[in-house]
Amino acid sequence: MARSSSLSGFLELLPSERIVELHVLDTLREVFERHGFASIESRAVETVDTLLQKGEVDKEVYAVSRIHDDAGSSSEAKMALHFDLTVPFARYVVENAGHLAFPFRRYQIQKVWRGERPQEGRYREFTQADIDIVGDGALPFRCDVEIAVVMARALEALQIGDFTLRVNNRKLAEGFYRAIGLTDAAAVLRAVDKLEKIGEAGVVAELTAKAGATEQQAQKALALAGIRTDDSSFAEQVRDLAEGAEDTELMEQGLAELAEVIDELRARVPGRAVADLSIARGLDYYTGTVIETVLSGHEQLGSICSGGRYESLASKGKRTFPGVGLSIGVTRLVSRLIGAELLTASRSVPTAVYVALRSDDQWGAAQDIADALRARGISAEVALSAEKFGKQIKYADRRGIPFVWFTDEEGRHEVKDIRSGEQAPADPQTWTPPAEDLTPTITRNV
Amino acid sequence: MARSSSLSGFLELLPSERIVELHVLDTLREVFERHGFASIESRAVETVDTLLQKGEVDKEVYAVSRIHDDAGSSSEAKMALHFDLTVPFARYVVENAGHLAFPFRRYQIQKVWRGERPQEGRYREFTQADIDIVGDGALPFRCDVEIAVVMARALEALQIGDFTLRVNNRKLAEGFYRAIGLTDAAAVLRAVDKLEKIGEAGVVAELTAKAGATEQQAQKALALAGIRTDDSSFAEQVRDLAEGAEDTELMEQGLAELAEVIDELRARVPGRAVADLSIARGLDYYTGTVIETVLSGHEQLGSICSGGRYESLASKGKRTFPGVGLSIGVTRLVSRLIGAELLTASRSVPTAVYVALRSDDQWGAAQDIADALRARGISAEVALSAEKFGKQIKYADRRGIPFVWFTDEEGRHEVKDIRSGEQAPADPQTWTPPAEDLTPTITRNV
Repeated sequence: MARSSSLSGFLELLPSERIVELHVLDTLREVFERHGFASIESRAVETVDTLLQKGEVDKEVYAVSRIHDDAGSSSEAKMALHFDLTVPFARYVVENAGHLAFPFRRYQIQKVWRGERPQEGRYREFTQADIDIVGDGALPFRCDVEIAVVMARALEALQIGDFTLRVNNRKLAEGFYRAIGLTDAAAVLRAVDKLEKIGEAGVVAELTAKAGATEQQAQKALALAGIRTDDSSFAEQVRDLAEGAEDTELMEQGLAELAEVIDELRARVPGRAVADLSIARGLDYYTGTVIETVLSGHEQLGSICSGGRYESLASKGKRTFPGVGLSIGVTRLVSRLIGAELLTASRSVPTAVYVALRSDDQWGAAQDIADALRARGISAEVALSAEKFGKQIKYADRRGIPFVWFTDEEGRHEVKDIRSGEQAPADPQTWTPPAEDLTPTITRNV
Repeated sequence: MARSSSLSGFLELLPSERIVELHVLDTLREVFERHGFASIESRAVETVDTLLQKGEVDKEVYAVSRIHDDAGSSSEAKMALHFDLTVPFARYVVENAGHLAFPFRRYQIQKVWRGERPQEGRYREFTQADIDIVGDGALPFRCDVEIAVVMARALEALQIGDFTLRVNNRKLAEGFYRAIGLTDAAAVLRAVDKLEKIGEAGVVAELTAKAGATEQQAQKALALAGIRTDDSSFAEQVRDLAEGAEDTELMEQGLAELAEVIDELRARVPGRAVADLSIARGLDYYTGTVIETVLSGHEQLGSICSGGRYESLASKGKRTFPGVGLSIGVTRLVSRLIGAELLTASRSVPTAVYVALRSDDQWGAAQDIADALRARGISAEVALSAEKFGKQIKYADRRGIPFVWFTDEEGRHEVKDIRSGEQAPADPQTWTPPAEDLTPTITRNV
């Protein structure tokens, strides 16, 4: 994989690897469409103003400008490549609001670019696969449930092994902090989010120093982040921790929302989700449900699918468009699965049948045979010259093409399965390969 | 279409328009794969050096640079967005030559960017769909035939009306000029290529002034460009024009090649090609076959599919990789067909069935119904809240969803075709929509 040496951080796949990636993308699309999500694409560039609006100044953005810049163009807006699909989608929704039907379910599978320092598994160009539901003014909470279920099913459909959606809720966390008397929720979140980096003692120190917490409040905030259940029993644990608190309305709302997501995931995609109250999703724009996803055995990949609810990602005057969405980092996931040979394609070409040439003047007749196969949806390719049959078979073998077609001087046809060596008479008008050989198959070693 | 007002020259489609585009892209992919072409994608950026190597300095290239540029990065290569898929493919072939099997058939469907002045039908970001066959050292001429046939079939599969591949051959033109004593073929091509701009008299003047032609030679060069036949009878006309010439070897080679392409196209995709000796394809890297394609009734679109043979687009030391390829300008074509409503989608979402809600607490049961349909590949969506049935039907109607599913208090199911108003009992485990309603259909008014 990744022979591309001339620019680091930019992954390019070989044909057999691309077949694996295409299979992943096709599968995602199929699941998204089966659940009623419509495809859109946004342009690759946004104005710098749009990109930086959301406070994402820490993202390494790639600026785009015309090399042959001329006088007239200095008035053009400064542009940059998009670094995710959420900001462009928000802009698309606002610009096209008059032509969209809300609630609007969309999926978007596109490349994004980030000028980060290249390192293993981090790319400067990568594909994301997003689904979102966006409403006009209001969006029922059950959309959070739906998004989580659809993504869990999409990941199941990929058959890439065990994964776990780790679900939390911002209202729950903020409501809990409020309930125990911590009013600067952002400061608390910032501190708790550093748990892995600075440890429990460090978090307690920061909570007391920067969030105005007492030792007891700090311990409770820490204890909250330690709660993890695979059913809705987390609620009881949270209520125990907040015992005696009065202002628990927001917390209870968060508890109810999280319980609904977890219960539905348990019912519809069993074994795929936990309530994990440590999940914070940094300081992003989320306002309710937040989700990260780990792939078992590949924890160092980080979250392979993340997102959540945002009450006002987009707005147009007084009109706001609340949404909920999840995003799969396809390239990081696929490159890991390909690199470790956990997903491999049975061949490097779509071709199922290679039509051999007995003599160079038979090329037209050989194309007729190939056309008869193609007309029935069988991918076929004709040899370019009448080399020795051994060489022609080697051509097919090198690409993993399973069948080679021979026609003798009397016009009798035979087809050879070059894996088993079996050869049998065949009619171009009726012969069909076994279903599993029609298109490349993906082998899973997960 | 194209509500995107914030950046001119960047087209964005509405969901129903995107369904049309997806249909076009899926169709092209299907035809390419059926003929044994493998997918690859190259990164969106190339080094500026790579892009300008081919002398394409007149293309408006978009430079890419990190906004937060730091000291260490000044050593990074200057990058720009690719403006076509041929130059990146050549670079990919050289970089990955050791891992590819030649001859290598690939298709590539990706966005490219050009910083041209926006004008009708010209976009700064657009999708190209390319097929090429590349050899290692040598590539049989019949690849030219194959590429032309596959593309003609791809365009036929799109069902966008009549089109004509206009085919010429550089060897024929250069060989003819040489045969009649004109040795500076480039100068002759440059002059003849201006025919539409400066007229016959202008071309004759330029030929005598800059290509050292006599009046008679100039007239013959002009006459050559006027030859147009839908079979291989052009050869006789060319030979008549060159009567008495001695050095006709290259010309005869070109005549034979062009005849082979035209004859095979006549046989395999009748009525789709003419030999048109005016086609020059500018001063690009082509060395043999050159092709442009016009869509009848949309001549002002220019060529919708162009390309040809290049003997040495890529090289690695002494190793050269000859190739032949054609490229469809998808965005320009699709935006025209959508804009003129020549292609329209029957709905704006993939959803075939909208499951209505009788009461809000029935959402889970409604999802069970939807899941039963989805399990059989039927795209289904569940209402988000139990609004009045009239409103729920309107929701489906607005998106073009053909069927609405109702379940009464006794658990009896009925499905309503909201186009005809017909409503009938249905079982979620067995009911299937008519095949034509399973996915959005594309209506052609061409």
